[in-house]
Amino acid sequence: MKKFVNDPKRFVPEMLEGLALANPDTLTYVPEFNLVMRADAPREDKVSIVQGSGSGHEPAHVMVVGKGMLDAACPGDVFAAPPMDYVYETAKRVASPKGVLLLVNNYTGDRMAFDMGREMAEADGIRVGVLTIDDDVSVKDSTYTVGRRGVAGNFFVIKAVGAAAEQGADLDELLRIGEKVNSVTRTMGVALTACTPPAKGSPLFELGEGEMEVGVGIHGEPGRERRELQAADAIVDDLLEAIVPDLPYRSGDRVALMVNGLGGTPISELYLLYRRAHQQLAGRGITVGRSYVNEYCTSLDMAGASLTLVRLDDEVEALLAAPAEAAVRVF
Amino acid sequence: MKKFVNDPKRFVPEMLEGLALANPDTLTYVPEFNLVMRADAPREDKVSIVQGSGSGHEPAHVMVVGKGMLDAACPGDVFAAPPMDYVYETAKRVASPKGVLLLVNNYTGDRMAFDMGREMAEADGIRVGVLTIDDDVSVKDSTYTVGRRGVAGNFFVIKAVGAAAEQGADLDELLRIGEKVNSVTRTMGVALTACTPPAKGSPLFELGEGEMEVGVGIHGEPGRERRELQAADAIVDDLLEAIVPDLPYRSGDRVALMVNGLGGTPISELYLLYRRAHQQLAGRGITVGRSYVNEYCTSLDMAGASLTLVRLDDEVEALLAAPAEAAVRVF
Repeated sequence: MKKFVNDPKRFVPEMLEGLALANPDTLTYVPEFNLVMRADAPREDKVSIVQGSGSGHEPAHVMVVGKGMLDAACPGDVFAAPPMDYVYETAKRVASPKGVLLLVNNYTGDRMAFDMGREMAEADGIRVGVLTIDDDVSVKDSTYTVGRRGVAGNFFVIKAVGAAAEQGADLDELLRIGEKVNSVTRTMGVALTACTPPAKGSPLFELGEGEMEVGVGIHGEPGRERRELQAADAIVDDLLEAIVPDLPYRSGDRVALMVNGLGGTPISELYLLYRRAHQQLAGRGITVGRSYVNEYCTSLDMAGASLTLVRLDDEVEALLAAPAEAAVRVF
Repeated sequence: MKKFVNDPKRFVPEMLEGLALANPDTLTYVPEFNLVMRADAPREDKVSIVQGSGSGHEPAHVMVVGKGMLDAACPGDVFAAPPMDYVYETAKRVASPKGVLLLVNNYTGDRMAFDMGREMAEADGIRVGVLTIDDDVSVKDSTYTVGRRGVAGNFFVIKAVGAAAEQGADLDELLRIGEKVNSVTRTMGVALTACTPPAKGSPLFELGEGEMEVGVGIHGEPGRERRELQAADAIVDDLLEAIVPDLPYRSGDRVALMVNGLGGTPISELYLLYRRAHQQLAGRGITVGRSYVNEYCTSLDMAGASLTLVRLDDEVEALLAAPAEAAVRVF
């Protein structure tokens, strides 16, 4: 295993400690619950927004806690849903009079933890809303999921409800906005290599030198098919062929286009994919209004990428363009 | 080769096309010279700042062209210095009455290209300053370098002179600031894997499963020693043991600390390294005033990281904190 790691069991807490040390003024860290929260949370004048999920997808979600994004994240261990008490303890700590919105990527384990955590919080009199994200078009059901999986497109749901919450939107309004963004967001990814969980110490699955996994999940779950590695442009064309007709995105639409790296792919290659996707969309009469080329939701050190489209209208575009701050930053 | 690539010869231009398509309002792309420049350059009221170097280090440097950073970058092919006419044509296109500042990482090929490009530009009456960056403490001379190599620390030189140029500093003042930042900046890196240039199609060097290269260069050049892979904390300790005494950084100093990913290492692991570095510096009485954990200067898909320290004073810290915008972004 060629990783920067000490004791694999301490991988997640040591990462979170690093995150807290690097952001002492803006983040509070509660080690017992893997909880990273805004130092100014809860704020009485806004709904608090929480996302859990497993670790191993960084910067999602602990590194997008910040102004205009999440109020807190409480990840489980690598690729493991958080225990229900993480969700409950987090909801208690960020409870605002305006309520708490829990965002859940659609995996069975995460939904269970968040449903139970929600019940516990509601028993304490905390007002809680839950929004499930399921943007992955690749498979209908999956290894760990009934229905579609939630993957990189959840960035857009977080960004939109995060911006609206800063502007004072109430819980019902945030649920409306979040459902709307999720309903116009579609993603599909491809893996060129497997990923290696620190505790396992070896690749999670086998992928031959000339193979790729099309429609891969962010935990390395199988997708649509394993096939021969293709040129970058052909890969983009195949992904768009699955994504575009699914909503469908139509000529005249304006979209946000995300090329998300899965952890082991450099940004140079992501821009190469962006080029083809932008050109192909233009050829279909679809205009890219906002572009996102970076790592957003990774699968540890997996080489690979996903494409996400979001159909924009004035409301969604304004929320995506609103200011935001988070630990993941350049300057 | 498990990469997103079409024709390897078109890797750099296709990446640059993607970059231009994703940033139509802020960047201008001139394909003949791999030139990416600010759409508003040249501005009469500021010195224009240019960095070349080879490709394969993205986001350095084409993706940090923007307000408060570079006015232009004109990279060569992967790991190749730009031809001198790229430098000359770039200098002509961004020539401002206040002059042009060329930033060069200290590699023999780059210095030659920039020296000759400068002479050609000066013959046209353009005022040109050149600043060489050499922050890598690992080796005195190297495969492609006389003197120390310039690596990830050059981000801080760009950021500081970029901010000062926006504030109206003249060329002499920028040379003073750039030399000052370079003089208090030290970096060392470690590779866990080799990188694979698209045109070669196979790893640039061999590194055994249990080995790492300490002090590696950003083109995979040998560093101080090849040794057995260690735990993350031990690696950080060794890097700091080389970096801290070199300036030296002393108890009472305030520093910027960068953990830079080399392309194939996920941000989760970078924060694990950050944790130990921050703690070790605190133990030495050195305060981290600003933190940078991301990919800044990569070596294609190499798994690995580098640590950089910058000794801060009020002037340098204010310049690093000034606003900046570039294509590499999250939101």
